[in-house]
Amino acid sequence: MTAAAKHSAPKLSIQQQDIPAGFRFAALRAGIKPSGKPDMACALADPATTAAAMFTSNRVVAAPVTVGREHLQATSGSVRAVVINAGNANCATGQEGIAACTLVCEAAAKQFACTPQEVFPSSTGIIGVPLPAEKLVVALPEIAKLMGSTPTHLQQFAEAILTTDTHAKIARAHVTVHGAPVRLFGVAKGAGMIYPQLVPHATMLVYIFTDARIAANDLRALLHGSVEDTFNCISIDGDTSTNDTVLLLASGASGVEISAANAAGTQAFATTLHEVCASLARQIIDDGEGVGHVVELQIEEAASRADALRVARSIAHSPLVKTAWAGCDPNWGRILAAIGYSSVAIDPSRISIRIGGHLVCSNGGRAPEMDTDKVHTAMLERNFQIRVTLGMGQHSCNFLTSDLTAEYVRVNAEYST
Amino acid sequence: MTAAAKHSAPKLSIQQQDIPAGFRFAALRAGIKPSGKPDMACALADPATTAAAMFTSNRVVAAPVTVGREHLQATSGSVRAVVINAGNANCATGQEGIAACTLVCEAAAKQFACTPQEVFPSSTGIIGVPLPAEKLVVALPEIAKLMGSTPTHLQQFAEAILTTDTHAKIARAHVTVHGAPVRLFGVAKGAGMIYPQLVPHATMLVYIFTDARIAANDLRALLHGSVEDTFNCISIDGDTSTNDTVLLLASGASGVEISAANAAGTQAFATTLHEVCASLARQIIDDGEGVGHVVELQIEEAASRADALRVARSIAHSPLVKTAWAGCDPNWGRILAAIGYSSVAIDPSRISIRIGGHLVCSNGGRAPEMDTDKVHTAMLERNFQIRVTLGMGQHSCNFLTSDLTAEYVRVNAEYST
Repeated sequence: MTAAAKHSAPKLSIQQQDIPAGFRFAALRAGIKPSGKPDMACALADPATTAAAMFTSNRVVAAPVTVGREHLQATSGSVRAVVINAGNANCATGQEGIAACTLVCEAAAKQFACTPQEVFPSSTGIIGVPLPAEKLVVALPEIAKLMGSTPTHLQQFAEAILTTDTHAKIARAHVTVHGAPVRLFGVAKGAGMIYPQLVPHATMLVYIFTDARIAANDLRALLHGSVEDTFNCISIDGDTSTNDTVLLLASGASGVEISAANAAGTQAFATTLHEVCASLARQIIDDGEGVGHVVELQIEEAASRADALRVARSIAHSPLVKTAWAGCDPNWGRILAAIGYSSVAIDPSRISIRIGGHLVCSNGGRAPEMDTDKVHTAMLERNFQIRVTLGMGQHSCNFLTSDLTAEYVRVNAEYST
Repeated sequence: MTAAAKHSAPKLSIQQQDIPAGFRFAALRAGIKPSGKPDMACALADPATTAAAMFTSNRVVAAPVTVGREHLQATSGSVRAVVINAGNANCATGQEGIAACTLVCEAAAKQFACTPQEVFPSSTGIIGVPLPAEKLVVALPEIAKLMGSTPTHLQQFAEAILTTDTHAKIARAHVTVHGAPVRLFGVAKGAGMIYPQLVPHATMLVYIFTDARIAANDLRALLHGSVEDTFNCISIDGDTSTNDTVLLLASGASGVEISAANAAGTQAFATTLHEVCASLARQIIDDGEGVGHVVELQIEEAASRADALRVARSIAHSPLVKTAWAGCDPNWGRILAAIGYSSVAIDPSRISIRIGGHLVCSNGGRAPEMDTDKVHTAMLERNFQIRVTLGMGQHSCNFLTSDLTAEYVRVNAEYST
């Protein structure tokens, strides 16, 4: 009933049949990025489109997060236009930041003939610099002229929202419900300050479009169900951003309804949505700042899922563990130490650790059969798995993270100066 | 009543009068470090010496931590010999690790004519590799011959315990109690996996010697009082080690008694002990792996001290904040974001941030008077302060941390392979 989500290669190859009906896209240079690259993107949705979003749990939130949350509440989940800028996060900008964001939404509402509350704003970039809203307002008539539904339009949209990303991230999937096709298409940006921890009211930006018809309440439930073990189970640097947003839009243009009345169809859609989210989450890690290795942590036999996640996060955020990965160094002692300070009740003598399928630690000590050269070779791969078995219970989690490289330091020591 | 503790320069200049009476020291090459550098150190204490220690809160602890804790309990705080090796942490080594540690203590007891429980063991180095105990046992008669109380002896002791440290770390102080001099001398090693979080039963290694006469119970209270806002308020990488140990030994050889009967003397001693701990804590950060900047976080106006510490740790462990420091980048937005995800209840609009005395953020936004060039210049200094005012209450903390540099990554990506 579902087709697997495909990972994007750095070179996009979007096909016309990938694009959900009921949406139009455009992007341009509004002059916000000092580099002069495209930095404004817009998506327009058909009138019946429902929306669900999750935002960062950071207590410092950007103006567009505050405004976007209010707009969704005011409309009970209706969005007609998404207006995004890169190059400036519009965060820590006070009431002026809120006013700038509102100004853009009001201008977009006039341009696209909807209410300001039906405009969903997003910003990403540097924190603490006033947003030059007038640059976005001035560009609105121009971007309105550019809107379209071809692969090129969608590709330009995906590229304009990037900051330190090296390439656009997309995932597409279709699912057949009662014989009728439904399309999903996701677009994401990431690269740094990536440890989303989205909450239901959630500087990763993710936009997922579908032409299924789904009531806003159901859409929220579907989104929450997919985020918990995808975007909320990834981390590059442990820095939870002030701007993280995942927005799911359902245009209904396929004519296919997903609702509680059709449990099998809902399940099929949920599975496909999960695949799209998982694909985008992995792509965000893969294109993280300076990332040399993508590491999948499989934490098993924890006393609770919360414990499993705590252990995963402790490992994923240990600079010593992450630098060892950068050096393809089978230094499992650092992993064991990170488990030890995770605050989870453990018994070291029950712990085993596998790197790339090779047992390196058993009963809390060096595995007798460990072959350092073999493990080192497994770690030369860009992607490898680390499985930690705690021996404390039946719960588990998968968590995706990256190494910590000199390139990450270089990128982030040069960001704003 | 007290003389200030002096920071050591990389070049030590220990004077004979700095050295507390009642102790002898020695070090040699036992062949544990692959580099062939000195890797075994020993301190002998007069019979009446009392001891107090604090150990890591990591749930994975090295064999010497387990054994040392048991020995102090068995003797109610009496130590005659401290036997330390660098190059191998004897951690995650199972029952064989405990047996190896016990073997060394038993041999040392025979060598130095005390009970095995009066021997305090320490190890630092790589995790998960069996400790070659026989190399230490064989070296005991040799190290016994070398013991002495001159500055050279103490300097060799301080150098043999190092791992990735670039130089020995010492602090000395004297305090006059009722006209009589008492000496304190501290020795530390640090460099990586530094976020101690010591608990009362505490791979930083710290040894502090004094010739005051202090009952073991009082010694414990004095040590706990000094550790909380010194060693427990520093972090290089957030990695709490499996081997952290602070040991305080009081020989009584000065004849000066510190006890509850002499409140002023106890206070003077406590103040001086605190200065010694603070000096060693700062030296550990200053000589941290790849450290380019030492940053003192002053968190003020928090609702509780726990909140202040949580905010400090969140800032100190943010890779994005630390890399910005490495680049002398006044990117205060990253600091604000780290405060936002610290889990502390804050009101962004009340927050102000000063870097090197310059206001960069007020009311949660960019300070109007911020001069980026001036702040950048202040951050070119190796040492600078960041003051965060939360506006939530009356509590505060000082926390010492470092930047995150490409050199840190290089050091740790090459450690064991």
